Amino acid sequence: MNNYSSKLLESAVAELSRLPGIGKKTALRLTLHILKEDATYAENLGNAIMRLRDEIKFCSKCNNISDLQVCEICSNPKRDENTICVVEDIRDVLAVEKTSQFNGLYHVLGGIINPIEGIGPNDINVAHLVRRVNEEDIREIILALPATVEGDTTNYYIYKLIKTFDIKVTTIARGVAVGDELEYIDEITLGRSILNRLPFSETN
Amino acid sequence: MNNYSSKLLESAVAELSRLPGIGKKTALRLTLHILKEDATYAENLGNAIMRLRDEIKFCSKCNNISDLQVCEICSNPKRDENTICVVEDIRDVLAVEKTSQFNGLYHVLGGIINPIEGIGPNDINVAHLVRRVNEEDIREIILALPATVEGDTTNYYIYKLIKTFDIKVTTIARGVAVGDELEYIDEITLGRSILNRLPFSETN
Repeated sequence: MNNYSSKLLESAVAELSRLPGIGKKTALRLTLHILKEDATYAENLGNAIMRLRDEIKFCSKCNNISDLQVCEICSNPKRDENTICVVEDIRDVLAVEKTSQFNGLYHVLGGIINPIEGIGPNDINVAHLVRRVNEEDIREIILALPATVEGDTTNYYIYKLIKTFDIKVTTIARGVAVGDELEYIDEITLGRSILNRLPFSETN
Repeated sequence: MNNYSSKLLESAVAELSRLPGIGKKTALRLTLHILKEDATYAENLGNAIMRLRDEIKFCSKCNNISDLQVCEICSNPKRDENTICVVEDIRDVLAVEKTSQFNGLYHVLGGIINPIEGIGPNDINVAHLVRRVNEEDIREIILALPATVEGDTTNYYIYKLIKTFDIKVTTIARGVAVGDELEYIDEITLGRSILNRLPFSETN
């Protein structure tokens, strides 16, 4: 799939295929689509990508992506600033916001500890979180990291750092997802959901 | 999945999700990937996309994508200029080139007749093909269009236009693909492959 008859085509395909989940064939399909569309589309897409990386800011408080110094969530006076939900990245902020079940602030780590990929505690915003715990009036930290070994490791690392403060540390509940059949659930999840069983009235 | 906390993020996601096969969630994943990479990557990707659309040329002879007035294939003196392979788009040129079984020139239609999508004979480079038939010394036209109703319609349309010229018109063989089990093949393909059976020695 090389020898594209055009250097311009070749370089567009090469750059697009560096995106995750996009191979050479898909990149070529996307490139030909861009060629078929109006010239304004290529202009808009190229500009959006370059401006994104050049001009994007991260909220100085919670590290969320933001166009302002402090993001909309952190600067909203109606949100409960005593509760902080610690998440891996902005997609998790969007996911939690979509539930409408959380009214506190966030702290975006920008990654989780993953020794295999060479991501250590200093590569994610943990020190920043400890500073917030020191400076702000925080009463509860909700750890909402992935239910993986890496997520658990990061949970534990953060817990060790902040356990000396007088703060409640919680993690989101793990158990059977709504709509799941018991027979298809792995035994660890099912085991945990039995250990952490709730009184019937609360479970609805 | 709206309310992205950043207009820059929102516009990058919106533009990326206009690409075929890329929804909002994938677009967000790609956008966050671009943010994590070096700034030079966003610069290169954005530039490659904009330059592609601005500067790309199409070969004046075969309509293939090219950086030059006449593409490398058309200007190669070793290729047989009496045989022309008619294809839908540049991906098909790449596919045929990869087989190393064809040494003639191409004619890229840039689409096939598709009334449902509103693509008629005037939207594809058919008139250009007829002009080539008139002006060049062509002895054989190989129709290598998709084996679909639209492909067949386009084949027939082109055949009607050029049948008055003294030119051999062929289509690529349709039949059982190498490695296919007969029981899984649709009856039309299998039926055709029986009708168009070949002497054993030729089939290898």
